[in-house]
Amino acid sequence: MANEKIPYKIYLNESEMPKQWYNMRADMKTKPAPLLNPGTGKPMTAEELSVVFCKDLVEQELDNDTKYFDIPDEILSFYKMYRPSPLVRAYCLEEKLQTPAKIYYKFEGNNTSGSHKLNSAIAQAYYAKKQGLKGVTTETGAGQWGTALSMACAYLNLDCKVFMVKCSYEQKPFRREVMRTYGASVTPSPSMETEVGKRINAAHPGTTGSLGCAISEAVEVATKSEGYRYVLGSVLNQVLLHQSVIGLETKAAMDKYGIKPDLIIGCAGGGSNLGGLIAPFMGEKLRGEADYRFIAVEPASCPSFTRGVYAYDFCDTGMVCPLAKMYTLGSDFIPSPNHAGGLRFHGMSSTLSELYHEGLMEARAVNQTDVFEAAEYFARVEGILPAPESSHAIRVALDEAIRCRETGEEKTILFGLTGTGYFDLVAYQKYHDGTMTDYIPTDEELAQYRAKLPKV
Amino acid sequence: MANEKIPYKIYLNESEMPKQWYNMRADMKTKPAPLLNPGTGKPMTAEELSVVFCKDLVEQELDNDTKYFDIPDEILSFYKMYRPSPLVRAYCLEEKLQTPAKIYYKFEGNNTSGSHKLNSAIAQAYYAKKQGLKGVTTETGAGQWGTALSMACAYLNLDCKVFMVKCSYEQKPFRREVMRTYGASVTPSPSMETEVGKRINAAHPGTTGSLGCAISEAVEVATKSEGYRYVLGSVLNQVLLHQSVIGLETKAAMDKYGIKPDLIIGCAGGGSNLGGLIAPFMGEKLRGEADYRFIAVEPASCPSFTRGVYAYDFCDTGMVCPLAKMYTLGSDFIPSPNHAGGLRFHGMSSTLSELYHEGLMEARAVNQTDVFEAAEYFARVEGILPAPESSHAIRVALDEAIRCRETGEEKTILFGLTGTGYFDLVAYQKYHDGTMTDYIPTDEELAQYRAKLPKV
Repeated sequence: MANEKIPYKIYLNESEMPKQWYNMRADMKTKPAPLLNPGTGKPMTAEELSVVFCKDLVEQELDNDTKYFDIPDEILSFYKMYRPSPLVRAYCLEEKLQTPAKIYYKFEGNNTSGSHKLNSAIAQAYYAKKQGLKGVTTETGAGQWGTALSMACAYLNLDCKVFMVKCSYEQKPFRREVMRTYGASVTPSPSMETEVGKRINAAHPGTTGSLGCAISEAVEVATKSEGYRYVLGSVLNQVLLHQSVIGLETKAAMDKYGIKPDLIIGCAGGGSNLGGLIAPFMGEKLRGEADYRFIAVEPASCPSFTRGVYAYDFCDTGMVCPLAKMYTLGSDFIPSPNHAGGLRFHGMSSTLSELYHEGLMEARAVNQTDVFEAAEYFARVEGILPAPESSHAIRVALDEAIRCRETGEEKTILFGLTGTGYFDLVAYQKYHDGTMTDYIPTDEELAQYRAKLPKV
Repeated sequence: MANEKIPYKIYLNESEMPKQWYNMRADMKTKPAPLLNPGTGKPMTAEELSVVFCKDLVEQELDNDTKYFDIPDEILSFYKMYRPSPLVRAYCLEEKLQTPAKIYYKFEGNNTSGSHKLNSAIAQAYYAKKQGLKGVTTETGAGQWGTALSMACAYLNLDCKVFMVKCSYEQKPFRREVMRTYGASVTPSPSMETEVGKRINAAHPGTTGSLGCAISEAVEVATKSEGYRYVLGSVLNQVLLHQSVIGLETKAAMDKYGIKPDLIIGCAGGGSNLGGLIAPFMGEKLRGEADYRFIAVEPASCPSFTRGVYAYDFCDTGMVCPLAKMYTLGSDFIPSPNHAGGLRFHGMSSTLSELYHEGLMEARAVNQTDVFEAAEYFARVEGILPAPESSHAIRVALDEAIRCRETGEEKTILFGLTGTGYFDLVAYQKYHDGTMTDYIPTDEELAQYRAKLPKV
């Protein structure tokens, strides 16, 4: 098909959909550093992790060697409800920009959760069900992950308890209602249902919560309730494994038409989308079979790659989770409240951190108002209203396409469009009203948080 | 391909997409009754209509004979940004219901306007542009149509003035922000920008507006402004013509796999979706080539087909528009405020009215709470969060599939899933909270409005 005109949207046939997930770690010479037990400073064992996570997921988390994992049939069936997702050739954008670059994006927003999060949610829910559990607990900030997990649990008839950061619970009632539609129980965090929640409420009366606190509550409920485990939507190795379906589909669609990207761009909060999108391409690079440039895009207000340090740190602000080696701003770091979208996590996936550390990947930080400018431009030209998170990738893709116009290079640019912005219209409104501002932490601020990193 | 396993989602290739719209009226023995000039009682001429509508659209509106209209290349390109839409085989629903019925739905929600409205919005905007106009005006209630038109106008660089019913403007700020993202000006109606708006505001201080009033404002601005025309998202023949793309794609996808539906179900407000979905199937029925059952589903709170009369009536409450012969409840009829979704129009497309009158189509009215029960059930099983409007069709599709379980009949059911419910979560919340109620107008109420029908 290499000579055919490339359609606006490439959809794989069901028979062409990936049947295995790809584990990038298997091709890495230096493996990502292991999770450490914060008490002993030693690598977490499978047994220790199994208190918090499902058995099969612990195996996936610790396995640095198996290259491919079969996707169970039940998950494949679920994937077929909303996958394959389209790989879109951005003809309209190219024309509007008058760029010789060829622009493609993989659009993961065509499902009710509105993002790629569903790819891992169904996998984690499936393994919980397989283990005979009653349910799972999790936290959610903006709500994409909570929505995705609610959908997966509804499908498998599994109980789903979501701790939602209180300010989001109150400010994003629609996300909450979607979760309720899928039968999840949604509790504003900090709550009075957990010890840690009670402690935080007592210490900070009237607090509107944080992601770190919600994680601690969800973990507490999972470990104290019979038949429950905790699940997480990003950062972990297992999540990147499940999300590799994004990259595998993208690569299969590109191969079908003989397309080879020069530049692959994704937004990066904890790394779930970026790690999934780049997986098979990075695999080729690691094996020396092909070369690609990868760019991780993060908010200037939460710049873990570009201004963080590569060190062991807690994954949560409550410091109950294992230590992970990653690019981090410090587990106390919380982005300025004027930051509108997601991508608020203080650290970054260990796998991606190692790849970045080795120079296999680049990173770029972008300002919020520039991101929304790109979002609105994209919406008008390509029709899709993008999520603020995804719009970080759009910003850099536009910048690169404009650079191609200036240099005349016919580069092929691929970026991940992780989701839609239907539940982010308060942020869009701020942008339209001119009340959106940028915030870049000072070096002094970052140094304060860095000083509190655990000594390992 | 007839013997292949039918995939979860059938996507046509771009080369298989329809290149012409189909005009159902050409195959009707009795044509829909013409629009009448309310002053003279005589059929509206092209010249009269051209004051309000674009030239090419007037031709399409009045043409009862041309069977196929070529879709202009510019519109085809735009369609390729979000079409073909998937025809989904509802395997999960069938299994959950344990029904021998085979269920398919055509999903039109995978675009930022969230509904099928975009199919006609781009066509109407295109003809306005072609005529060299500066812009278009329209009204919107729930906001799907206004959003779709804003997207189409942004693409073609055309000005777009939307009059949004004031209560929706205030209660649905997110819809408003989407329109602003696409560069439309959105004015709450009744406004102080038009004569009719000033009159209504003076007569009813503090009124939160109605669709009928917003139509009158949009028409006034279109006719009084140089280089503007008025566009409408439903009811008109031209809209059904453009929406035939839904049915044509559906039929092409079904033919490809040798599928023949027994029963075709669609929700009906003004008739845009239903008229589009059934078009090529009804064509076969009209020509005696095949037989199908068609069911129009309407809210019990606004039952124009099932409890209205077939008569000439005004299309707007302001009585400035032409008279149309249709099933109507009377142009003063406004559904009870407890009715949550769209489908609030007092009348019905003239074309569909004639088909219903001849017994070629059935109609069924359903209660709001039953509709939301079906919506939630569908969301949990099939993953998609449906719009309240679309959920009327889901309700009847479920009822029919359950009937098949009881009778053992292996019927093939097709329904239109017109859009997503992301902007209708206030209604979902009412349903979850148990505060949603049903309202069925009494015979006495309906008789009051009927008594005010114009004498023609």
